[in-house]
This record gives sequence, C-alpha cells and structure tokens, in this order.
Amino acid sequence: MKILFLGDVMGRAGRRAIVERLQPLRERLKADLVVVNAENTSGGRGCTAGHAQLLLESGADCLTLGDHAFDQKDMLAFIDKESRIVRPLNFAKDAPGRGHTVISDARGRKLLVTQALGQVFMSRPYDDPFSALDGVLRAHPPGGLVQAALVDFHAEATSEKMASGHFCDGRASIVVGTHTHVPTADIQILPRGTAFQSDAGMCGDYDSIIGMDKTEPLRRFITGMTRDRFTPAEGEATLSGIFVETDDRTGLARSAIPVRQGGRLAATPDELT
Amino acid sequence: MKILFLGDVMGRAGRRAIVERLQPLRERLKADLVVVNAENTSGGRGCTAGHAQLLLESGADCLTLGDHAFDQKDMLAFIDKESRIVRPLNFAKDAPGRGHTVISDARGRKLLVTQALGQVFMSRPYDDPFSALDGVLRAHPPGGLVQAALVDFHAEATSEKMASGHFCDGRASIVVGTHTHVPTADIQILPRGTAFQSDAGMCGDYDSIIGMDKTEPLRRFITGMTRDRFTPAEGEATLSGIFVETDDRTGLARSAIPVRQGGRLAATPDELT
Amino acid sequence: MKILFLGDVMGRAGRRAIVERLQPLRERLKADLVVVNAENTSGGRGCTAGHAQLLLESGADCLTLGDHAFDQKDMLAFIDKESRIVRPLNFAKDAPGRGHTVISDARGRKLLVTQALGQVFMSRPYDDPFSALDGVLRAHPPGGLVQAALVDFHAEATSEKMASGHFCDGRASIVVGTHTHVPTADIQILPRGTAFQSDAGMCGDYDSIIGMDKTEPLRRFITGMTRDRFTPAEGEATLSGIFVETDDRTGLARSAIPVRQGGRLAATPDELT
Amino acid sequence: MKILFLGDVMGRAGRRAIVERLQPLRERLKADLVVVNAENTSGGRGCTAGHAQLLLESGADCLTLGDHAFDQKDMLAFIDKESRIVRPLNFAKDAPGRGHTVISDARGRKLLVTQALGQVFMSRPYDDPFSALDGVLRAHPPGGLVQAALVDFHAEATSEKMASGHFCDGRASIVVGTHTHVPTADIQILPRGTAFQSDAGMCGDYDSIIGMDKTEPLRRFITGMTRDRFTPAEGEATLSGIFVETDDRTGLARSAIPVRQGGRLAATPDELT
Ligand SMILES: [Fe+2]
Ligand SMILES: [Fe+2]
Ligand SMILES: [Fe+2]
Ligand SMILES: [Fe+2]
Ligand SMILES: [Fe+2]
Ligand SMILES: [Fe+2]
Ligand SMILES: [Fe+2]
Ligand SMILES: [Fe+2]
Repeated sequence: MKILFLGDVMGRAGRRAIVERLQPLRERLKADLVVVNAENTSGGRGCTAGHAQLLLESGADCLTLGDHAFDQKDMLAFIDKESRIVRPLNFAKDAPGRGHTVISDARGRKLLVTQALGQVFMSRPYDDPFSALDGVLRAHPPGGLVQAALVDFHAEATSEKMASGHFCDGRASIVVGTHTHVPTADIQILPRGTAFQSDAGMCGDYDSIIGMDKTEPLRRFITGMTRDRFTPAEGEATLSGIFVETDDRTGLARSAIPVRQGGRLAATPDELT
Repeated sequence: MKILFLGDVMGRAGRRAIVERLQPLRERLKADLVVVNAENTSGGRGCTAGHAQLLLESGADCLTLGDHAFDQKDMLAFIDKESRIVRPLNFAKDAPGRGHTVISDARGRKLLVTQALGQVFMSRPYDDPFSALDGVLRAHPPGGLVQAALVDFHAEATSEKMASGHFCDGRASIVVGTHTHVPTADIQILPRGTAFQSDAGMCGDYDSIIGMDKTEPLRRFITGMTRDRFTPAEGEATLSGIFVETDDRTGLARSAIPVRQGGRLAATPDELT
Repeated sequence: MKILFLGDVMGRAGRRAIVERLQPLRERLKADLVVVNAENTSGGRGCTAGHAQLLLESGADCLTLGDHAFDQKDMLAFIDKESRIVRPLNFAKDAPGRGHTVISDARGRKLLVTQALGQVFMSRPYDDPFSALDGVLRAHPPGGLVQAALVDFHAEATSEKMASGHFCDGRASIVVGTHTHVPTADIQILPRGTAFQSDAGMCGDYDSIIGMDKTEPLRRFITGMTRDRFTPAEGEATLSGIFVETDDRTGLARSAIPVRQGGRLAATPDELT
Repeated sequence: MKILFLGDVMGRAGRRAIVERLQPLRERLKADLVVVNAENTSGGRGCTAGHAQLLLESGADCLTLGDHAFDQKDMLAFIDKESRIVRPLNFAKDAPGRGHTVISDARGRKLLVTQALGQVFMSRPYDDPFSALDGVLRAHPPGGLVQAALVDFHAEATSEKMASGHFCDGRASIVVGTHTHVPTADIQILPRGTAFQSDAGMCGDYDSIIGMDKTEPLRRFITGMTRDRFTPAEGEATLSGIFVETDDRTGLARSAIPVRQGGRLAATPDELT
C-alpha cells in the first residue's frame, strides 16, 4: 500500500496548501491513503469541525490531532461523530473521541491509524504512551487484521521519538513524529522493517517561527515582554511529510521517502508541476 | 568561503567517522574551514583534552561544545590553553574558556565562531542567549573584521532555534542548531542572507536513541525503571552537518546544502567514495 | 525597625482582607513599614494601577510583584510613575519599572526592598537572580545607606529559595519567598543574622487551589480536560506573612515570627480582635 | 486513632533524630501509629534495606518512599519482603513492591497507608496519581474496612498538592505532602473532614539546602559550575510532621497539629524534654 502522511497543518496558509495541492500530489504519488495531522489547522490552535471537513474533502482520508486537539471547542462534540479523526490515545482520561481508527483504501485494504503523546518537555503531563501503543498494536497486527499500521507520535524530545520508533519496530508500518513543526532528515527503515521519521514537519510557512508570524515570538524571545497574540504566518506553505510503500502481506515498509512541496524548503521528490 | 559544520560527535563511533572520513570529505567539498561540535565525543558526555586534540588533528579547525561542555573535568583546564575550542557564551558566569573565537583559513580569511545555549526545555537554566549573541555579532560584522560568522545555537526547542536564525539573519553567515542529535530538513537561506538549519544532527550511529545504545533508554521509557548506565551505540556513524558557501565581501550565504555521509541515513551530496 | 511582609494578595478576597484588616494589624504589631506582594491582586492575574493604589492607601508602604507583574497591561505604564512598586530585578531585559527601591519609615529610617525571580520550575526562563541580587545588596549595605534590606525571592523550588537565603545571609535583613501561595513553617534567623522564610504564603482563601476556586483546577487535574477559566476563590482570606524586628545599626534580624490572621489557618500571633 | 506522620528522613542527621527521639515523641503524643517517609534516609538518596529496618525498629510502623524509592538498589528486592514499606502507586509500571498497605495498631485498629507521586515539576513523568488514588480509596473506605486512611502525596507543586487534598476530602483521614523538604504552615481540616498539610517537611538539618550541605548547591546556583557531589548536612535534625487524631467510626479527622522537634525550627507542640 502507498501511504502519504503530512505533518501539522498550520493555519490558513496550511489549509490553502492542502486544498490546492494535496489532490495533485496524491495523484502523482499514486497514494492509496493519506493521513494528515490537523492539530493547528484553525488559527494555529486546534481544528474546528468545519476545517476538519474541509481537509477530509480535500484529499485526506484520516486526520490526527495532538496536544492542541480540543483548543477549538466544537471538536469536543464533533470528534464523536466523525470516525476518521483520531486524537492521542493518552490525551486525558475523560477525552471524547478515539485514539485509533481503521480506514480502508479503494481496494479495501485496511490501515490502522493511531496517535500517542510524548511525556518529555510537554506542557501538560500525559500517561505512559508506550503501554497505550502496545495495546493498540497487539490488537491490530499488520499483515493480520490490517494491511498496515501508522503511528503518529506527537512529541518534543528526539530521544522519546526515536524510542517510539524502536518500540514499534516490526509491529507498525510507519512511525512518524509530529509536534515540532520542523521536518527531520533521518528517514530510515528500522532493523525490523518499520519506516521511521522523527518529525514530519508542518504544512506551513517556513519563514516563521514554527509556523507563526515572526514578530511576536521574536519579541518575546528577545525582550522577554509580551505584546500581542500569536498569529499564523501567511507566506506560501510547504506540504511536508513522508511517503511510504508497505508490503500488504507483512505490513512492513518497502521504501520511505521525504515529501516537501512548495514554499521555502527544497522540493522532494522533485518539484510538483 | 566554503564552510563545513558537523554536529555533535557521539562517542567512539563518531570519533572513528571523523578520523577516517573527515579529511576526504573536506577535500572533496573543497572546504576552507571545518567546525565540529564535540560535546559528546568522550563516551557521549563531554570531550577530554585528548579527544579534542584528536578531532583538531583530523580535519577540524575549531570545536564547539554545549551543555555537556565540562562533563569531562580535564576540559576545565584545557579550554584555557586551546583557543580553537568554544564553549557557549552563556554557559555560566564562572565558566572557563571563551564563548567565541576567530579562526583563519589558508588564505587568511577570517571566520567568527560562536555558540549560545537555548533556554527552553534545557536541564539547567542559562541566561538570555539573544543578548549574548547580539554583543558578539555587533563586534564582528561579517564583511568587516571577519569574512564570515558561524553561530552554533545549542538548543532543544524548534521555536527558539528558528528565532535564533531570524534574530541573526543578515548578521551571521550561518546559524546552525545542535543538541537534538537529529538533522533537520529545513535548510534555507533566510530573507536577509543567513544560511539556517534547525539542527545539524549528530555524527553518530542512527540505529540508537540519540546516539546511545537502545537497550537502557528503551527500558527506562517502557518500564520506568533504571538498570544500567547509558553507553554510546557502536554502529557506523553518519557524518551529519551543513555545507555553506559564503560571499567574502558581504559575509552572507550563497548556497547551503545538507551533508550526510555513511551509516544509515541517505547520503547527501551523493555518496563519498 | 519593625517590618511586616505579606505574601501574594489573591483577588477580591485578598483585597478585602487588606482593606479591612491590614491597618489594625499594622497598629497592633507597631510595624514601622509594611511591604505587600501584589502580583495576584486583580482577578488573580497581575495588579491594575487602581488596585495598586488601593493597597498603598490601605496600609502598604511598598508593593512587590512577580512573574505576573504585567498581566494587567496598565501596570506597564503605571509602574514608571509609582516608585513604591518593585518588579523582579530579572523579569526581562526590556521591562519597565525598577527592581529595587528604598522606602522610609515615619522616623526616616530606610528600607531597601528588592525582588528576584527564581529560575527553577518557572514557566519562563529568567536570567540569574543571584548575580542580580548581589549587585543590589552590595550597593545597599544594611547598617550603611539603609537601616534594613528586604529581599522577596519569588520562586517555586525550595532548594533555590533556601539557597537565596544563605546567599544573602548577613547582607539582607529579611529574605522571604513568595509565589507558591502556601506559607512555610521554616522561619528562622540564619547563622549570619538574616531572617528567612521559604514562602510567606498568600493573602487569600485557603479553601481553594492556591487561591483559585477549586472546581476548574480540580477538573483539570482529575479529568485532564479544560472547561472554564480560573477565578479566585471568594471565601475569607487569611493575611499571611512574616514580621521581623531588625537592628537599625547592623541591619540584622533580632526576631522573626509568622503572621496569619483570619480565614482558615491557625492564627499567629494570637487572633486579632 | 492518634497518627503521627514524619516527613523525609534526610541522611545520617535524620536517622539519628529518629533513633534517639522518635520513641520518646511517640510516647509523649500517645501516638497509636507512626508513618515515616524514608526516601532520603541513606546519604540523601533512597533507603537501604538496613536503614529501613533501623527506622522500623526505632518507632516507625510503616515507611513511605518517593521518587527516590529505588536509588539504593537493594530496595528493589527488599521491598517485596517487607510489607510495611510503601512505594508510590504510580512510580512505574514495572516497579516492585506495593503502592498501599494496611497496618494495625496495638488494639487492632487498621490504617491504610498509600502514596502517589505528583506530575508537575517532577524530574520524570509519572502516570495520573488521581485515578490511582481513587481506586485505592474506593477499596478502603475509612470507617469501613479500615479505621483510618493516610495519603502521602509526594509532589513539588502546591497547586497539585492542594488538589490532592480536595480530591481525597471526606475519603481519607489525612492527606499530607512530602518531597519539598520544607514544612508548610497550612494545616487545616478540609470541609469534608480530611486533615491536610501541603508538606510535612523533612527530618533533617534546616541549616542546609533541602537537607544537603550548603556548599555545593550554593556553588551551582551562584556560579553555574559543578564541583562535588551533594552530601547531607550534619547539623542536628528537626523531626518534622503532622499529628492527627481521627474518629474510628467515620475515619475523619478530629484535630491536626504540626510537630517540629529539635534542630533550628521553632518547637511545636512545645519542646520535648
Ligand atoms: Fe503539538
Ligand atoms: Fe503542531
Ligand atoms: Fe547538548
Ligand atoms: Fe549533544
Ligand atoms: Fe503569586
Ligand atoms: Fe508568581
Ligand atoms: Fe522526593
Ligand atoms: Fe525527599
């Protein structure tokens, strides 16, 4: 199966890139399924029901969220109605929605999509993501009930992210990090067959501070003083993520390449035209 | 000027890669100057005087350190004798050594090398890196006293790292992050001419947890229990960093490309042979 | 000199306690000077100009602030007009106002009042408080230019707070912590003569979570989910702080006792009637 | 039932105070049961099997631990042999030992003793303590299977500690914090009958930095540089804790007073002679 995963969609610039460029990218890559992290879709903070629908109509088959899952309050109710949205397994004991889902491609092949939050350097404490992932992966062996399994590990620390990859190695098709909004150049297939990237990067404007307009965050770093709110940067977004081809029989990765299209970062695979 | 910067050298595997492969890489790239981050050279914790000399004899013109600067106690005395080693400007009020230095290439062209520690998510508090960098950059305008200026921003958070790039944009030739041990795929020339990469990655074994053998860190993440010490992973290291060509007149960047050679990561520029 | 210090005034309940009970308390204790921490006076977040004036008219001779110093935006301008308000020395490079001031009692005796922010477990990074305090204390030797010196060390960690006490021991009359909103029972005169208490506690309702109504913080701790804003608890506040008598000649402490009046905590010295 | 709880025993000074002064204190207070936090008994880091036995022979009926539970490696095996030692419920998934125990006084009355770790500002992440405590308290309703229940909430943040008190209010006899090594002066009986103190303080030398000799921690705070290890301060320790009388029928608190004996802090109840 050919699976495209794109990192955190950042505000209007990110939405525009998805609406205008995801469908052609999907076709060009012949992706069977597309998963998109949507936790920053609405003004950089969470994702409204309307924006979730927009992404799902624009070429995404499934959305993941993150620590900002419910920053937009209508998601609290919407997530229970839309089975294609996944919030972190360990978001909170009383969180609505689901921490994993199974989606199908046009040929009926199944992909498990799940997400967990790291514990290191996060703004709130979350329960152990490793045991949470363990349960879900045991229940969905790739090559068994599902043809492939994708883990979005939403975390800050590279140590914890690399640990998530090795922990799932051989049990998931793809472990891809999100949350830092910067793509990493460490894509590899781990020893037991799982495709891994520490962070997919964001779908946002890279002339920014993690997708936000530079002015206010720079002021805070330089002067220590706060003046305004953060607002997403409005320059052209780079679609950023990972493209993996999996073996339907084993669920393991055959190949994994970075995807970056548009905006300021060097294009890979070569420019979409 | 052509400047090669390589990220955190990680233990024996990293040292071996430097000793065996830095000189050919340097020649192939026709690098005029090479700067290497050495904070994890000795067992993953700090850098002994002997290992510092080894790196300087193996093709490095200058070494930077980081939060682990003085984990090996002999560096406390050695750093005052070796002007080619830079510790963070804001390491501590009473730290020995220097936070910036100027080195010269074979043709006498000068490169300022400086380093600062971020404040976000670090294990100890450090004073404001932005005002520290401001002073050093004002005193060394590229295109003036020096032909180029390189800032190693040793930090965890992508927000603070991107802020360091924009803060120095137009005033430094290169701002490159270190500390996370994972290379980022966001190399770009910022609007006012500074080459930027959030993290150079490590010179270490990428089948690991940030360069450490996987067993013990995985145990701690999964079980919550400690058993052994961390030891560096011993597989072949990837040399990882950034290569920048600067304009000697303006000190700004003309081009910037990723460098990854050997080990498990995809090679760039194409494989060194 | 007899000096009363009261900890963080928390919202309306705290203001009411100051307005109604500070003047009688002051008289009963025969306090020469009263310093009050005002960082949570207005809705629990910062202190408006109007509320600052109210406290100064109700028996406080000087106000200190904290990490919430400028949560109420009108304080940014007001602090430069009112010399009796002190913000932390190390709040931020570009902060308005002053980090220390000297006030005088009815007999002309002078008290230095200064404040610093700790670095451990704080929500933002601050520069080194120890060197900042060092400069101010050197310039104002108690028993010299001033008869006494009070340091409000606004910090979370007990280790850093105890360190601040020992660091200033013999150089300040009083080192008293603030910020945790819980009074500590460790009042002592340190070996070289400085009165010390790790935290003065808050002037607020102790049937609460650090002065906030219990409902929302409990929800967040128990369920992990956010619903409403925090609002200060409205039950009767306890005035909480420390009362120190100093030697005008040496500036050192002769005696130090806890003060807690009203609300839920056991009264000391015996109930004010 | 009359229950005495003493906070973190700190090194040799703390052990000596327990050995020499706990038995007389126990008799004078006519305590039916004594619980002691032992996480810093051995050199300030953890508690060896031998030191645990020493405390249990010196007047303690039960020991609690904390984040330092297994710093002394022989505790990993010993805790499974000694049912009177409790480690935190949420220490780690694979931790040996138990998170709660039931002990009996001379008249056969039963006391539940349990411990949980907070999540805020701790050096490692722990799973949700509130749901862990909920399960234990539901299974041991005071006034039912046990006559009383004591919760040692081992945490840094005053907000989380106060939340633990309100969460257990009416369901436990005593909620007492540990870990900060400074006693708080906020002892109260909460609205539904639970005796509460944010922190019991340590049994250690208060002319110190949280029980450690001042020299090295002061050096680190002031200079930012490390030289030596931390070692416990050796001055006379203060026994520090809380004494609660409970109603055997309801399990709720009738009275709660601070206990501080010896060393530098003001004695309460009046000096033991
Ligand atoms: Fe996130
Ligand atoms: Fe995000
Ligand atoms: Fe580092
Ligand atoms: Fe490093
Ligand atoms: Fe406060
Ligand atoms: Fe505060
Ligand atoms: Fe502890
Ligand atoms: Fe402790």
